[in-house]
Amino acid sequence: MKSPIAVVVLAAGAGTRMKSALPKVLHPLANLPMVAHVLANAAALKPSRIVGVIAPGATAVAEAFAPHPTVVQSKPLGTGHAARAALGVLQGHEGPVLVVFGDAPLVTTQSLRRLVAACGKARAAVGVLGFTARDPSPYGRLIVEGGELVKIVESKDADAAERAVDFCNSGVMCIDGRLIATLLGAIRNDNVKREFYLTDAVRIARAAGHKAIAVAGEEAEFQGINSRVELAVAEQALQQRLRQAAMIGGVTMTDPGTVWLSADTKFGTDVTIGPNVRFGPGVSIGADTVIKAFCDIEGVRVGRGAIIGPFARIRPGSEVADDVHIGNFVELKATRMGRGAKANHLAYLGDADIGTGSNIGAGTIAVNYDGFGKHRTVIGPDVFIGSNSSLVAPLKVGRGANVTAGSVVTEDVPADALAFGRARQVTKKGRASALRAKLRDRAAAAKRAATERSGKN
Amino acid sequence: MKSPIAVVVLAAGAGTRMKSALPKVLHPLANLPMVAHVLANAAALKPSRIVGVIAPGATAVAEAFAPHPTVVQSKPLGTGHAARAALGVLQGHEGPVLVVFGDAPLVTTQSLRRLVAACGKARAAVGVLGFTARDPSPYGRLIVEGGELVKIVESKDADAAERAVDFCNSGVMCIDGRLIATLLGAIRNDNVKREFYLTDAVRIARAAGHKAIAVAGEEAEFQGINSRVELAVAEQALQQRLRQAAMIGGVTMTDPGTVWLSADTKFGTDVTIGPNVRFGPGVSIGADTVIKAFCDIEGVRVGRGAIIGPFARIRPGSEVADDVHIGNFVELKATRMGRGAKANHLAYLGDADIGTGSNIGAGTIAVNYDGFGKHRTVIGPDVFIGSNSSLVAPLKVGRGANVTAGSVVTEDVPADALAFGRARQVTKKGRASALRAKLRDRAAAAKRAATERSGKN
Amino acid sequence: MKSPIAVVVLAAGAGTRMKSALPKVLHPLANLPMVAHVLANAAALKPSRIVGVIAPGATAVAEAFAPHPTVVQSKPLGTGHAARAALGVLQGHEGPVLVVFGDAPLVTTQSLRRLVAACGKARAAVGVLGFTARDPSPYGRLIVEGGELVKIVESKDADAAERAVDFCNSGVMCIDGRLIATLLGAIRNDNVKREFYLTDAVRIARAAGHKAIAVAGEEAEFQGINSRVELAVAEQALQQRLRQAAMIGGVTMTDPGTVWLSADTKFGTDVTIGPNVRFGPGVSIGADTVIKAFCDIEGVRVGRGAIIGPFARIRPGSEVADDVHIGNFVELKATRMGRGAKANHLAYLGDADIGTGSNIGAGTIAVNYDGFGKHRTVIGPDVFIGSNSSLVAPLKVGRGANVTAGSVVTEDVPADALAFGRARQVTKKGRASALRAKLRDRAAAAKRAATERSGKN
Repeated sequence: MKSPIAVVVLAAGAGTRMKSALPKVLHPLANLPMVAHVLANAAALKPSRIVGVIAPGATAVAEAFAPHPTVVQSKPLGTGHAARAALGVLQGHEGPVLVVFGDAPLVTTQSLRRLVAACGKARAAVGVLGFTARDPSPYGRLIVEGGELVKIVESKDADAAERAVDFCNSGVMCIDGRLIATLLGAIRNDNVKREFYLTDAVRIARAAGHKAIAVAGEEAEFQGINSRVELAVAEQALQQRLRQAAMIGGVTMTDPGTVWLSADTKFGTDVTIGPNVRFGPGVSIGADTVIKAFCDIEGVRVGRGAIIGPFARIRPGSEVADDVHIGNFVELKATRMGRGAKANHLAYLGDADIGTGSNIGAGTIAVNYDGFGKHRTVIGPDVFIGSNSSLVAPLKVGRGANVTAGSVVTEDVPADALAFGRARQVTKKGRASALRAKLRDRAAAAKRAATERSGKN
Repeated sequence: MKSPIAVVVLAAGAGTRMKSALPKVLHPLANLPMVAHVLANAAALKPSRIVGVIAPGATAVAEAFAPHPTVVQSKPLGTGHAARAALGVLQGHEGPVLVVFGDAPLVTTQSLRRLVAACGKARAAVGVLGFTARDPSPYGRLIVEGGELVKIVESKDADAAERAVDFCNSGVMCIDGRLIATLLGAIRNDNVKREFYLTDAVRIARAAGHKAIAVAGEEAEFQGINSRVELAVAEQALQQRLRQAAMIGGVTMTDPGTVWLSADTKFGTDVTIGPNVRFGPGVSIGADTVIKAFCDIEGVRVGRGAIIGPFARIRPGSEVADDVHIGNFVELKATRMGRGAKANHLAYLGDADIGTGSNIGAGTIAVNYDGFGKHRTVIGPDVFIGSNSSLVAPLKVGRGANVTAGSVVTEDVPADALAFGRARQVTKKGRASALRAKLRDRAAAAKRAATERSGKN
Repeated sequence: MKSPIAVVVLAAGAGTRMKSALPKVLHPLANLPMVAHVLANAAALKPSRIVGVIAPGATAVAEAFAPHPTVVQSKPLGTGHAARAALGVLQGHEGPVLVVFGDAPLVTTQSLRRLVAACGKARAAVGVLGFTARDPSPYGRLIVEGGELVKIVESKDADAAERAVDFCNSGVMCIDGRLIATLLGAIRNDNVKREFYLTDAVRIARAAGHKAIAVAGEEAEFQGINSRVELAVAEQALQQRLRQAAMIGGVTMTDPGTVWLSADTKFGTDVTIGPNVRFGPGVSIGADTVIKAFCDIEGVRVGRGAIIGPFARIRPGSEVADDVHIGNFVELKATRMGRGAKANHLAYLGDADIGTGSNIGAGTIAVNYDGFGKHRTVIGPDVFIGSNSSLVAPLKVGRGANVTAGSVVTEDVPADALAFGRARQVTKKGRASALRAKLRDRAAAAKRAATERSGKN
């Protein structure tokens, strides 16, 4: 069975238990829609085609499948009915067809590959992924005899011997592409719910003299998502996978359970991550970089040997070079920091370029927004920006320039210039006590007025 | 037994293992004193009276019970003695009397209701809530025969057969109000510890020809709190309940284990909560609002479609309307933000009103405190406050006004006015290198001086 | 066996699975190198000597052992070979010799003490710490008969009966100092791996007519660390110990699993800690102090009754007196705050002394760095620093002085003086709409230009 694989993703479920306006399969895990995980795991098999089965009107789901085609299941009449909707797109496909679920994003590529390989080796018409359930009671049981899957029994239809079986049906199937139209076409809805069950394909195939098999995987992989509670459990499982992979690759995490990764987060070796760090999409971190506790990092390439946090926030469109320091209560947005540049305390750098070796003082604000447009602040190398400065963009500060603390800078500062934008200090001796007396009186008067007002009520 | 219920809450324990100046039952869970949880769960039964039994001098505990009465247990002579102290308040009460514990706040209303109902149905004089213990060794065992509770055996008094029983005593009891005075009056302290045990009521009732029963609950519910470690375990259990309820109601949590709720936190549907968000008391969040990672939110009503965080802090007395954005390192205190208003970066807004659609620049401070009194800043709609501004309250800024970046504003700004409160920039060409040389010399001199000083030591 | 103890710490392992440039035993746990935990636990036994066995060239490891001596194991030829390298340092030592592992930092002093005591009591030549393994398959089994350890069987060499034994070898041994040279000298490498196994000492001792024993400990203690995943697991276990000890001592933690302690963190009673607080090294916290959520605290002595956080960061070299308040988005670095001083919002206080009762306004920056040197800001008692001020160090502000909001202060302010360093406000009526029109035009023009540019591409 070296023929090309096709994958059918069933994604037409209503998801009412999510209590959400968002279609279930678009709820995110590790910052990707759950169906995108299903697609990525399927794509790793290099299938010749992938097709989604979606509910009527689910255009947002169709967009999540693009560039893969989708077909609409007109009515919710069961998994067999849903899979049948894909037959048109599968025409001419003679290799194995995997049927997977858009709301079961933890099924690994490895499990899918093992299922396809086992079907090929056994020349099976139908293969099913199963798992040994801790509590089998809610699941259909896979009855295996002599290496063949002889039937799938629904829990409610099982006799005592079958109920004792703990090898359960995951729903994931592999069907021979040359037989799929015939097998699905033979499924009937002569049952209590009047639904077409995909599991019937096993019985139908065997009745026609074909072989069916079951392949075992881990229970945790096959957890479907029907509620926000199950969504949170799946997120946890996925995070666990991502964290383990990062640590095995040479990342130290003080408390891995408090590091939230995105599916695409990348790390060099000897990266250290403190507790409570969230990585949004689009982050890569270079070797030897330290990320301290309480950071929120998204959409940035960070170089080697940088020190970030605690309490740093980096927003998309940023680039942080080697040996940069970004300290507490500092926000970067669409900002580039050159090698060795520093912004160690309470600063907002939005739409800015900071030259190599430049130092941004505490409390500095890159004033990028005027209420209508966003503008860039371009700071050359080896610049010193004094604390509490306001850099009103568009603005250029040349190499080696110095902006004094507390300045409002509205005009470009040439290289090596010294810019002041602040008032000269005036000290009035002995005047603080008079001010205190005045303020104390004002406070007392306000209190009296408040008491009076409440007395009138 | 449709007669009114009375509830006796035993709250006189010393709690020495808490190592605390605060009485044990006042230690908080989900930001409420633990005894307040007991009272809330009891109150849901709509009892005709609730009475607390407290230790001598425990006025803070008595206040936590108000408006319910409390009686003082003069000496710590056991649970039977404590319950007896409540008999005065129970006079004339003929319905069931529940005896619960102020340090067991996880017992649910449902369990209490089931106990009362079972006692009524069985016409039992005494009913006990029990649980199947994972490790029964520390607990008294409930010996049930023919549907009746025949005795409660303390662990140390149990024979081999009794020790094998894992159905244990939670301590929570329901006693027929017509018999309670007689039953409690008959309890004796002829035991090693010279204490009066409430559990003796079972033996006494049966000896007098009455019936006793046991009703099963979950072990987790009956965990009493005697140490800070057990307090933390109970907090965890309570948080787990609150999180599950929120998710079932339509809230997505990236990592529910890192969301801390208060007993009274309320959510609309499709609210999304990132990792590490703490909700203090008095918070309600409207539908479709997103709360990003690392937020601390207390005492605020947030509208629909707002975006909050990461790293936002909202303090009590605030109101946040629909579509408001509150970004990183922003603090709100007793501040109202009108529809669509924004404060996205590093700002302190204390005692302020921000009009609809107004934009508060990064680094803005509402200067609300003068050392003696607090004053309000009132900003109209569609105002633009430039970054790093200081708004010295009391202050009014009219509709559509513009405060330029870096300004100190001490006088009211009329509608549509432009306010400056900053110095004009002066740029001195080629002067940065001279300053650098001077600062470098100063640093070198300081270093020499430090070396000299340490040499002298 | 009241003779003095010697301790040999084997720390020559390569640690390749850590994927790190840092030697394995220097990877930190609770902010101490893991080998420092091993040394501290050994030191608590008051041994007469401690010696480390390290790999060639591992000078950083040798430094971590200082002042204890280290010897180099020339080649990685097994634990027996490593221990033998220490014989020179042990010459003349006649008491018990403990052999422990630099990568097993969770072994407690109590377990070591029990092992030594048991060996003394039994007059055993060799004693081994063992544990009952949940899954014994990877471990050597301890075969005990009649109270004696008769042999240690490697897992792969065990017969069926031996494989059924779940009492396993931790590797930690106690060897009689009078026999150690003979026993280690007799170990041979006639095995598949051509290594010298320390465990052979048991067989050799018994063959020579000596006695060997095994003493049981907890499995969790003996977890060795070979990967970052195991490092994270050990960190978690150690944190759990530290948190329990703190809570038993009278500290309340809302969620102990989110409080990260250092090995040396110290607390008074009735300290309350919110979720997500990290304590770096060198912290002590006085009684009744409240630390709110999301704080990062390192190198500071905090007094009684202080209120810190949420979102506060304290860096080393700081001192915080009784009743101080440090609020959100405030950073302290090498700063002393006198009794009752307050810095409640968005401030950077670096290299500063804040007098008793002084109030630091929101947005204040102590400008301590000029690009070359760091300078101190010294603020007297009862000073009021207005919001958004920049205090340019070196600077002195005298008792009772008042710095007005938004001021840049570059010269000393005498006691009771009032300092202004800001421009007077100018309000231009009706000019905001003209500005808006101008800015709107600029934004539109920029958009047009961008569209044009992208059109040309």
